[in-house]
Amino acid sequence: MIVDNLKQEFGKHYLVELIGCDKEKIKFVKDVEEPFLQAAKKSGTKILKYLFHQFQPYGVTGVVVISWSHFAIHTWPEADYIALDILTCGEMDAQITIDDLKKKFRAKEARVKVIPRGV
Amino acid sequence: MIVDNLKQEFGKHYLVELIGCDKEKIKFVKDVEEPFLQAAKKSGTKILKYLFHQFQPYGVTGVVVISWSHFAIHTWPEADYIALDILTCGEMDAQITIDDLKKKFRAKEARVKVIPRGV
Repeated sequence: MIVDNLKQEFGKHYLVELIGCDKEKIKFVKDVEEPFLQAAKKSGTKILKYLFHQFQPYGVTGVVVISWSHFAIHTWPEADYIALDILTCGEMDAQITIDDLKKKFRAKEARVKVIPRGV
Repeated sequence: MIVDNLKQEFGKHYLVELIGCDKEKIKFVKDVEEPFLQAAKKSGTKILKYLFHQFQPYGVTGVVVISWSHFAIHTWPEADYIALDILTCGEMDAQITIDDLKKKFRAKEARVKVIPRGV
């Protein structure tokens, strides 16, 4: 069997739609970077590397690399919307990050799908 | 309704398990970075920023930011396994990237889930 050495679940992938955000809080890197990094840290993980990109006239993408996993955020201020994804591997609590970002960006709703990875 | 301004699908998220890879090809950044960047470009998109991280003794994480979207790769050489994810928004063909990486890293199988984002 070709899958013999892939018996385990390597992690969980959280795909999160943050809906009804405050558009003024998600337009620019200067407003998104620090809240996003803080929210990632709150999950109990150590940040290894990160990058952010500013789109014109507004909109932000940010990616945070943690141990064998990552956080990614894409903001669409024109739709008051954030696409967030969190790939977790090991001991960390993604829900803390989701709740924290929902509060910080004043989202009215967080829709979460959790997909197992590696199985 | 709080979802009034989120009527559209913003993109698709491809969660890909590459199984039975050649472990010697996925241990180090020097072997993963260029094939991954080339595979991303083949989808028809423009790379804006990227970063890679080397784990010890082996294992690689790489993230490529494209227009409002991203590619991410995490390699587990000890299990001949790659977790790949591609968030697409706009005109690009993620399947080209998946097929290209499957071939380059000699994966025996590619399991793909496609999740709509923003709906």
